Amino acid sequence: MAVDTDVLSSVRGSRDLRLLDSAELAGLAARIRRYLVERVCRTGGHLGPNLGVVELTIALHRVFDSPRDPILWDTGHQAYVHKLLTGRVAEFARLRQAGGLSGYPSRVESEHDFIENSHASTALSYADGMAKAFRLRGEHDRTVVAVVGDGALTGGMCWEALNNIGAAGDRPLVVVVNDNGRSYAPTVGGFAEHLTRLRTRRGVRSLFEDIGLDYLGPVDGHDLEALEEAFTRARDLRRPVVVHCVTEKGRGYRPAETDEADRFHAIGVVDPSTGRPAVRGTTSWTDVFGSELLNLADRRDDLVGITAAMLRPTGLHPLARRYPHRVVDVGMAEQHAVTSAAGMAMAGLHPVVAIYATFLNRAFDQALMDVALHRLPVTFVLDRAGVTGEDGPSHHGMWDLSLFRLLPGVRIAAPRDAATLRRELAEAVDVDDGPTLVRFPKGPVGPDVPAVDRIGGLDVLRQAPGGDILLVSVGAMAPVCLATAELLARHGIGVTVVDPRWVVPVDPALLPMARDHRLVAVVEDGHLTGGVGSAVADLLRDHDIGTRLRTFGLAPRFLAAGKRQDLLAEQGLHPEALARQLAGSLDAPDWPVPRAEAGRPRTETEEVVGR
Amino acid sequence: MAVDTDVLSSVRGSRDLRLLDSAELAGLAARIRRYLVERVCRTGGHLGPNLGVVELTIALHRVFDSPRDPILWDTGHQAYVHKLLTGRVAEFARLRQAGGLSGYPSRVESEHDFIENSHASTALSYADGMAKAFRLRGEHDRTVVAVVGDGALTGGMCWEALNNIGAAGDRPLVVVVNDNGRSYAPTVGGFAEHLTRLRTRRGVRSLFEDIGLDYLGPVDGHDLEALEEAFTRARDLRRPVVVHCVTEKGRGYRPAETDEADRFHAIGVVDPSTGRPAVRGTTSWTDVFGSELLNLADRRDDLVGITAAMLRPTGLHPLARRYPHRVVDVGMAEQHAVTSAAGMAMAGLHPVVAIYATFLNRAFDQALMDVALHRLPVTFVLDRAGVTGEDGPSHHGMWDLSLFRLLPGVRIAAPRDAATLRRELAEAVDVDDGPTLVRFPKGPVGPDVPAVDRIGGLDVLRQAPGGDILLVSVGAMAPVCLATAELLARHGIGVTVVDPRWVVPVDPALLPMARDHRLVAVVEDGHLTGGVGSAVADLLRDHDIGTRLRTFGLAPRFLAAGKRQDLLAEQGLHPEALARQLAGSLDAPDWPVPRAEAGRPRTETEEVVGR
Repeated sequence: MAVDTDVLSSVRGSRDLRLLDSAELAGLAARIRRYLVERVCRTGGHLGPNLGVVELTIALHRVFDSPRDPILWDTGHQAYVHKLLTGRVAEFARLRQAGGLSGYPSRVESEHDFIENSHASTALSYADGMAKAFRLRGEHDRTVVAVVGDGALTGGMCWEALNNIGAAGDRPLVVVVNDNGRSYAPTVGGFAEHLTRLRTRRGVRSLFEDIGLDYLGPVDGHDLEALEEAFTRARDLRRPVVVHCVTEKGRGYRPAETDEADRFHAIGVVDPSTGRPAVRGTTSWTDVFGSELLNLADRRDDLVGITAAMLRPTGLHPLARRYPHRVVDVGMAEQHAVTSAAGMAMAGLHPVVAIYATFLNRAFDQALMDVALHRLPVTFVLDRAGVTGEDGPSHHGMWDLSLFRLLPGVRIAAPRDAATLRRELAEAVDVDDGPTLVRFPKGPVGPDVPAVDRIGGLDVLRQAPGGDILLVSVGAMAPVCLATAELLARHGIGVTVVDPRWVVPVDPALLPMARDHRLVAVVEDGHLTGGVGSAVADLLRDHDIGTRLRTFGLAPRFLAAGKRQDLLAEQGLHPEALARQLAGSLDAPDWPVPRAEAGRPRTETEEVVGR
Repeated sequence: MAVDTDVLSSVRGSRDLRLLDSAELAGLAARIRRYLVERVCRTGGHLGPNLGVVELTIALHRVFDSPRDPILWDTGHQAYVHKLLTGRVAEFARLRQAGGLSGYPSRVESEHDFIENSHASTALSYADGMAKAFRLRGEHDRTVVAVVGDGALTGGMCWEALNNIGAAGDRPLVVVVNDNGRSYAPTVGGFAEHLTRLRTRRGVRSLFEDIGLDYLGPVDGHDLEALEEAFTRARDLRRPVVVHCVTEKGRGYRPAETDEADRFHAIGVVDPSTGRPAVRGTTSWTDVFGSELLNLADRRDDLVGITAAMLRPTGLHPLARRYPHRVVDVGMAEQHAVTSAAGMAMAGLHPVVAIYATFLNRAFDQALMDVALHRLPVTFVLDRAGVTGEDGPSHHGMWDLSLFRLLPGVRIAAPRDAATLRRELAEAVDVDDGPTLVRFPKGPVGPDVPAVDRIGGLDVLRQAPGGDILLVSVGAMAPVCLATAELLARHGIGVTVVDPRWVVPVDPALLPMARDHRLVAVVEDGHLTGGVGSAVADLLRDHDIGTRLRTFGLAPRFLAAGKRQDLLAEQGLHPEALARQLAGSLDAPDWPVPRAEAGRPRTETEEVVGR
């Protein structure tokens, strides 16, 4: 195996690959698969997609001259093989760890990488722009290659790009369609059926040709020779062309090949021999949502679920199993998810659109104009809100509160535990005159956090005499806020902790409480700019309440990959840092530096983010 | 002519239309055209598109049973004929006036209207949602009709919707493609060429059929009999079908038919006999931008312009005339505009993406993930920022500051006059490490507003001793702020007015000034939530500056149509209201109610929006 690894490590780009003969290449492909299984089972990551593109990636790097010919990966999670072939074998052991290799292309890592955003369906647009730029700059010998999945092609951006690419007949641009028939689950829609026809019947004119691109294929995506031949022809055409490659997600790894749910699309740490999770699952926020939605749907037949190609990851599968006609998978098409929900609501249904928080950014305009303007009863359920973890900057769900707070009439709930998630979801689907939004983080849901009192719409989680600090806890930050309050109590600072439950609009019951405290603080797992803290600031300003306010949340910059708890701590969203900051704001100069932190350099403290 | 009007007024929906014979229908069509020309030349509005759909609309209402069969208009500006045929002839005289008939479908006006948002490419998604809902609810006899232009079909949402519509073969849904070969200007892209092939060659398989819809056409969109026959066949198929109608924008009105620029897409008040503007044009913000961009492009050949189907309205035509290869029209595809710009920037160009403020909402995710995450030098130029006027709720550019402030590293300029627009645009294209945004309103640009001093990056427009009020003026609000300061000065209140020029990030030079005043106020032509006022609030909070702050902007709700000045005044953004509010905030209880306002009811005052 040491020898094998050396073979793998010795390949650093096109030149090395071109020296290998076909037996060596087959050996390399097999070696890459074993390496991927071994490593990704250990670190977690996107296994299935990468097992499907081993030969495809080798062939691309043999035919094209990266980075002079940029190879752009749509949804960058399919770029592991590309990373291995461009000199990053050694670093692969630290995939998706803080400070380690990114799970997506990364321009700091390599000149072979371009697109760091891993929202789907963007690569063709980048490719069109690059090809236009190369042309204008007179760099006529450069070819742009974009690899896009059949799933991502259901996203509207791809259509916009193809419409542009097809119209300019003389720019060398190769679109590699990686057709594995799936996104997470099998790809849906009329276009998927078209691809199936192209796969199964020769001589069918392709849709790509309808709009001006050439078409080569279908090509067996695991036949290196066929792939190289097709890519070479495509390269030499010097015009826009689609190469339709048929691949198998999870190829060569039995547990993935036989997993009909998602073919090991993205895994945690698993036992490589069986593919089973190394640690037993706990109940997640997603599970709680899925089960409560089913309860509600049993009682109300106007409730329907909508997913954008993520039935299982968003927790809609229990509903789909019991009521198959009441769940719609629209493909990787968040815009359509939202506006078709608006159409359903106009026709008398109450749609529940379940989407990862970061992906709903794609449909801000539709939520504003198609749902809110018409005051339609659509409930958005945002999983993966806040800090998500290992998926990096484009997957943190940190913009939702700031964005969707801009929708007139919207109501946003941030449940703190399983019990409040159930209750607030039920309240959300009872609203019939405008959009509602329920947001919660990724991962296991902790124990319930009981309220000790209710004031207006606010749950009081902890009541302290003395009127020092009123701590407003947003959603899943409740345990952190309670621990902060405990720390401060030990130093004689009284902290009352409230959970507004519905964070937009802010409940005016907060006003008299704010007036009666020396300091108000808001702690949220979202963007500091324009979030709940900002909403509380507006409310206090509107009512001329002069109590000082501090807001704590995520810094207004992109967050790297890392474990959720670590990232939150880095952002100052842990009890020690919060307690220190709050005590400082109260002018308690004798606040001791906690022992564990005393030795840290000053910059650590300065990085604590708070207003 | 009185008789003619009566004929028009007597038609109130399908039943009346079905009683007319073919001669009467031809007479009705001619009468509608004359009426449209006469009225729209008087009020301004979307003339060309509506002249193109006279027969198409008559035929739809004869064949389908609106509103039981919903007729959905994509980009609602083509719904004037629909309005006339559904009982709104009398109200048509007050088209697009405050309190009058909306220029778009309006659910308050009529049960025949559904979609009030007039951003393009949404109707097919609504239609898909409605058809799914009718099916689930057992309303099998209802057919959904969506009318969409060939221009709007270049938008990605349409692809997402067609992919869904095509896959569900048994829902009655009729997509009427209104193919006039244009959006504003001729439609671009591979799909437009496909439509041309369908128009000109019989027997070509259509792209719609590729993805599962039936296809009928092409049909002469001005031949009532042919239209009715096609719509009847489509209705009776009981499955998804496209009816491809070929129409002529501006049909029947000579000045429009011969106008190659945009066929009278949207006009102001014009002389109906000549089609010439009733008042002579003045220099607009758009003109200044277009001319300065050309100056800059003369000196730098890496500057390129990108438009989403609005070359002329966004002011890119001077650049396109001199450097045709350096302007790209991507179609009605804001997402692709932004991400292809990111691709160009990666390849060494500096793209200037010129888009109406409200339409960039569509590409928030792309600006965030594709441009800002990669720190690419892309300049966004947002015309029609703030209150736009007669186009109604979906066209006001009131979200840009709140939204794009969320982009890490972004810099946003709000020029106050022609001179600062030129300077700030030049500064924007000099930034090479991240996105910049320059925003300005619709309409004529006023006289230059000179600075009396410069402190840090701030222009001081008026310097007052006394330290009463520091007024922060955003962009085009400068004359209003100066007039407000004048009013207050007459009552002995000293107001210093500053223009930060770059409003994001806020220049810290503001801090010592804020500290030295009794009150800081921000006046902006944008959404109160999360805008510049909110940014100033964050800055003051960050630096523990306790000076009171008031922010003035647009209320967090949808704004109706009306004249820009009237709408601003309604929102309290005029000197008298601002002065009164500010004086009140300073506790100047003897502030006199201005004479002109003394008699108004109390609610007027209460509606003044301010924090």
